[in-house]
Amino acid sequence: MIKILRVNMTERIATYEEVPEKYVHRGGRWLTSSIVCDEVPATCHPLGPNNKVVIAPGIVTGTAAPTSARISVGGKSPLTGTIKESNAGASFSQRLARLGIKAIIVEGQPIQTGEFWRLYINRDGARLEPASLTTGKGLYEAFPGLYQEYGGVEKVDILGIGVAGENLMATAGVCFNDIEGRPSRYAARGGMGAVLGSKGLKFIIVDDTDAPGVEIADQALFDQGRKKLADALTSHDITKPKGALNTYGTAVLVNIINEAGALPTRNFREGRFEGATKIAGEAIFEGNRKRTGKELYNHACSPGCIIRCSNTWHRPDGSEHTSCVEYETDWAFGANCGIDDLDIIAELNQLCNDYGLDTIEVGGAIAVAMEGGLAAFGDGKRAIELVHEIGRGTPVGRILGSGAVVTGKAFGVSRVPAVKGQNMPAYEPRAIKGIGMTYAISTMGADHTSGYTIAPEILGVSGKVDQFDVDKVKLVRNFQHATAFIDSSGHCLFIAFAILDIASGFDGMVEECNGVLGTDWNGDDVGRIGKEIIDMERSFNRTAGFTKADDRLPEFMTREPLPPHNTVWDIPDEKLDKVLG
Amino acid sequence: MIKILRVNMTERIATYEEVPEKYVHRGGRWLTSSIVCDEVPATCHPLGPNNKVVIAPGIVTGTAAPTSARISVGGKSPLTGTIKESNAGASFSQRLARLGIKAIIVEGQPIQTGEFWRLYINRDGARLEPASLTTGKGLYEAFPGLYQEYGGVEKVDILGIGVAGENLMATAGVCFNDIEGRPSRYAARGGMGAVLGSKGLKFIIVDDTDAPGVEIADQALFDQGRKKLADALTSHDITKPKGALNTYGTAVLVNIINEAGALPTRNFREGRFEGATKIAGEAIFEGNRKRTGKELYNHACSPGCIIRCSNTWHRPDGSEHTSCVEYETDWAFGANCGIDDLDIIAELNQLCNDYGLDTIEVGGAIAVAMEGGLAAFGDGKRAIELVHEIGRGTPVGRILGSGAVVTGKAFGVSRVPAVKGQNMPAYEPRAIKGIGMTYAISTMGADHTSGYTIAPEILGVSGKVDQFDVDKVKLVRNFQHATAFIDSSGHCLFIAFAILDIASGFDGMVEECNGVLGTDWNGDDVGRIGKEIIDMERSFNRTAGFTKADDRLPEFMTREPLPPHNTVWDIPDEKLDKVLG
Repeated sequence: MIKILRVNMTERIATYEEVPEKYVHRGGRWLTSSIVCDEVPATCHPLGPNNKVVIAPGIVTGTAAPTSARISVGGKSPLTGTIKESNAGASFSQRLARLGIKAIIVEGQPIQTGEFWRLYINRDGARLEPASLTTGKGLYEAFPGLYQEYGGVEKVDILGIGVAGENLMATAGVCFNDIEGRPSRYAARGGMGAVLGSKGLKFIIVDDTDAPGVEIADQALFDQGRKKLADALTSHDITKPKGALNTYGTAVLVNIINEAGALPTRNFREGRFEGATKIAGEAIFEGNRKRTGKELYNHACSPGCIIRCSNTWHRPDGSEHTSCVEYETDWAFGANCGIDDLDIIAELNQLCNDYGLDTIEVGGAIAVAMEGGLAAFGDGKRAIELVHEIGRGTPVGRILGSGAVVTGKAFGVSRVPAVKGQNMPAYEPRAIKGIGMTYAISTMGADHTSGYTIAPEILGVSGKVDQFDVDKVKLVRNFQHATAFIDSSGHCLFIAFAILDIASGFDGMVEECNGVLGTDWNGDDVGRIGKEIIDMERSFNRTAGFTKADDRLPEFMTREPLPPHNTVWDIPDEKLDKVLG
Repeated sequence: MIKILRVNMTERIATYEEVPEKYVHRGGRWLTSSIVCDEVPATCHPLGPNNKVVIAPGIVTGTAAPTSARISVGGKSPLTGTIKESNAGASFSQRLARLGIKAIIVEGQPIQTGEFWRLYINRDGARLEPASLTTGKGLYEAFPGLYQEYGGVEKVDILGIGVAGENLMATAGVCFNDIEGRPSRYAARGGMGAVLGSKGLKFIIVDDTDAPGVEIADQALFDQGRKKLADALTSHDITKPKGALNTYGTAVLVNIINEAGALPTRNFREGRFEGATKIAGEAIFEGNRKRTGKELYNHACSPGCIIRCSNTWHRPDGSEHTSCVEYETDWAFGANCGIDDLDIIAELNQLCNDYGLDTIEVGGAIAVAMEGGLAAFGDGKRAIELVHEIGRGTPVGRILGSGAVVTGKAFGVSRVPAVKGQNMPAYEPRAIKGIGMTYAISTMGADHTSGYTIAPEILGVSGKVDQFDVDKVKLVRNFQHATAFIDSSGHCLFIAFAILDIASGFDGMVEECNGVLGTDWNGDDVGRIGKEIIDMERSFNRTAGFTKADDRLPEFMTREPLPPHNTVWDIPDEKLDKVLG
C-alpha cells in the first residue's frame, strides 16, 4: 500500500495518508512540484511556516531499473523565490520507495526557533526524536554516529542538513549518503537545506528492513524495458563501463568545454582557463593512479547504477581526500575562481559536503566576491578560509552563504552571472547559445540540469548542433519537457546520453514506467507529461511574481564579449519568450 | 535660457543641452521619472553603466515660493530594482534652478573602477575634477574643505556621497548641505548614493554667482499664489511658526503614533513602545531647553521655508550633537531597535550623516539583524558599533549596508517588514490600513512619502478617517496622485497639511506653478499630472519585472497580530489592485 508521510513540525507529529488519486502515477519532480503547487502559497516566505519540503523518489525508484535511485526535494526556494526541485542519486530514495512511501511532506515549523529534530522511519511507522546532540557538527562527524545508533550502512540511509542548513543559508543543500555511507550526494541547489533548517528537521533516517518493496503492475513489461535501457547504457560511449563517465567522471567535460571556449573562467570574464588540463577529469584519473598506484575507475553513487561516474580524489600519501569531484564542483572552485590545484578543489568540495553546501552556488559566490575585491582570483588558501567562514556563520560567511546575488549586492558587484537568483553552472551562454536559453527560461533559475542541451551542442549526442547557432527554440523546449519526465521517472539525467542516441533505450525507460504503474504511455506522453510539469511550475512562479523580465540573462553578458570567441549574448527576448510560450 | 546638463562619466565630459519641448513644464519628480523612463532600460543593472542619475529642482524651486527648495534624485534603485525618486530640501536645488539648470543627467561610468570625481558648476559652465583627496573621508570632514576651496557657504552648495556611496551600498543616500553648511539633508532612500558611487561622482558643487534666476512667465499670478500658500502655511496649526512642526519637529509624531498603537517596535513585533515619551519630539524640546538653557524652536533646512521643522540635539554640555533628528530616524534607531536614549539616537543619526546613509533603511537592517540574533534589542552601544562597521565596509557592515532584505537573507530572518526591497518607515500597516495600502502599491517600495495618508488617518487633516477602516482605495489613490504633483512642484510634502485643510493654499500652489510656467492648470490638472507620473513609473516597474505580486505586504503581517490592537493585515489583494488599476 503506497502512502504519503506528512510530518508536521509545529505539532511534531508524523502521520500516514492515502495517496490522492491524482498523484498515483506521479513520482519524483512531477510529484514534488504537484504537491508544492497544491499546498504551498506561491507568495509565502520560503523560510516561513507556510512553505513545505516535499521529498519523493521517482516512479521506478526502488526497483531493479538501472540508474534510477533519484530522490527529488521540492519546495519554494529561498535562493530563487521560485518553485524548486533538486534531486540526487542516493539509496535513501530506494529504501523510501520500498517502504511504499510515495512522498514525505514536511510542513509547519517549531514555535521555538533553533530546535532541531530527526525523523526515523521504518516499516512500523515514523517518529520524531530530538537531534540536539548532532547540531552544530559537520556531517562527516554526524553520519557515523547515526549509523552506529541506527544499525549501520547496510540497514539505513540518511538525509541530513549541515550547519549551513541550520543557519538557514540559501546555499544549503540536502545531503544523502552514498553507498559507502559518505555524506556526499546532494540535492544541492536552491537552498532546500535551509528550508528543512527553518522547519527544525535535521535528519531523516530510513530503515527498510522487511519493507514490502515497490509494487510492479506488469513485471514482464518492466523487465523488457529494464533490459532495453540497460543495453543502451552499457553500449553508449559516454555511459558504458570504462566509458567516458566511468573513467574520468563528469569532470571529463573540463577539457571539452574549455576547448569549446565555454568554460566560465574568473567569474565569467573569459571562456577558456589556462589551468584547465590541471583540473580535468583526465588529471584526476592520472593523479589518482600516481598516488594510489591503481587505475581507479569510478564507483556508483547508489545501488543499481550502470554508469558509475562517482569519483574519489586521493592525497599524496594515497589516502582518500574526498568524493566526489563533479565537473560542476571542479569548475566552480577551479576555473571560476581561477584555481588550478586539484588538492585545493578537493578540500573545498570536502568542506562543502561537511558543512552541507551547494558547491556551484558557493563557488559562484566566492568568484563574485573575488570580483568585488574580497580575495584575489586564484587564491586557493583564501577560498578554503572563506568556506570555513560560511561553516562558522561569520558575517562574511553569511554573505557568501546567501549565494552569488546577495554577495554581489554586499560588494557592489554588477557582474553577477545569475538568473532568478541562482548562479549559472559551468557552461558559458555567450559561447553555447542553447544552454543560455535554458538558463533564461528554466523554472528553477540558471540550471543546466533542467535541459542539458550541451548533449547536442557540444557532445554531438542526438546529432551535432552548432554551439553558436541561435535557432534553438524547439531544441530547448524539447529538452525542458523530456528532462521533466526523466526527473520524475527516478532515473539519473545521465541516461539521456544513451536514450537520445539509442531509440530502444528511450522505449525502455517508458516501458519501465508502464511496467511499474500499469499505464500505457508512449513517446508522446513523455513530452505531454513533461510539458504539464513545466507549465505547472511556471504557473507557480507567475503567481509568485515572476514575469518574462525574469526569463533573461544578466545584462552584462549582452555587452561584454567573451574571449576567446568574443561573442556576446545575442538571443532576442522574443525568441526566449517563444520557448515555453 | 533653461537647459539640461549631461555629465558623461565614461568620457568625463559635461555638456549643456536644450530642454526638449516635452520636458519644459516638468520639474522635480515628474522630470526625473520622465528622463529615467525615456533613457534608462528598465532591466539594466542599477550599478551598471546603463543606469543614470537624474537630479532636478522642482517647478517653482529657486523662486520666492515658500517651502519650495526640494531637489529630486531619480534613477533605477539598487535597493528596490524599481524606478526611484528621492527628494530633499536643500538650497542646492535653488542655486541649480537659478542657473537655469532644469536637470543634471549623470550617465556612464569610469572604465577604471574606484576613481572618483567632483563636478563644479557655475554660470560659465561645468567641469569635472579629481576627487581623490576627499574619498574615504566622512562628510563632516569633507564638506568644510570644499567650502574653503570653493568660496564658502554663502557662495556654493554641495551634493555629496559618503563612504557608503563609494562602497556601492544600497543604503547610501545623496547628501546636501543645510543652510549652515552641515551635510545633513538627504535624498536618502533607495540607494541613489550607490548609483552615483558606481559612476564615480562624489560631489557636485554649485555656485550661482550672477545666475540669471528663474524666469517667471506671469509674475502677478505667481505672487498671488505665493501669498495664498504662505498664508495657509502660517495659519495651519501643524505648519505655522511655533506650531507643532516648528516646536517639536517631525518627532512630534512619536507620541501620537505610539498612542495610536502604530509605532513599530522591535522590528515590527509590537505597535507601542514603552520608551516612546523618552524619545518623542517633546523630549527633544525639553532636553534641549535643559541642556542649552534656551527654548530652541526649529530652523529651516533651506532658505524660504515657512514651516522650519529642522531640529538639533545637544549634548549635556550644551554643544550641538546633531541635526536633524527626524521622526523617521528617531523611530528607526529608537522604537524599532528598542532604544530609548536620545543621545544614542543622535549619535546614530550623526554617523549616518557622516557616512552617507539612509537612517530608515539602516535602522531597519539593524532591527532585522537584532531579530536574527546579531545584537540584543535595546543595545544602543552595539548599534553604534554596527553603524561604524557599515562605514568601514567590514563584512557585517556590508550586510547591514545592503539594507533590511539582504540582512534578512544573511541571517535567515523571515520577519522582514519590507515591500519591493525597501524597509517600511515608522507607521504600522496592521494598525493604520491606508498607509499599509500605500506601502503596498507605491512605485518606490514601502514609502510613506508617496502618499501620506497618515494626515487624515491619524492627524485629522482634511477630515478624520478611522485608522482601521479598510475602505480606502480612493483615498490612497488620490494621495498618490496629489503627492506626485507636489514632489514635482518643488514644494516640501509638508505643505500638504495646510493645503488639504485650506483650499486657498491649494490654489496658491497651482497658481505659483502657472505663474512660473505660463500654464493654466487647475485642481483637476494636479490629479491628471499626478496620475501621469505614477502611471509612467508603474510602466517602468512592469518592464523591470514587477507585478501585482510585488504590490503586497510581507506575509508575516497577515498572520501575526500586532499588539496592542492585535490586528493583522487584512486588506484583500483585490482591493490593493484597485488602487492604481
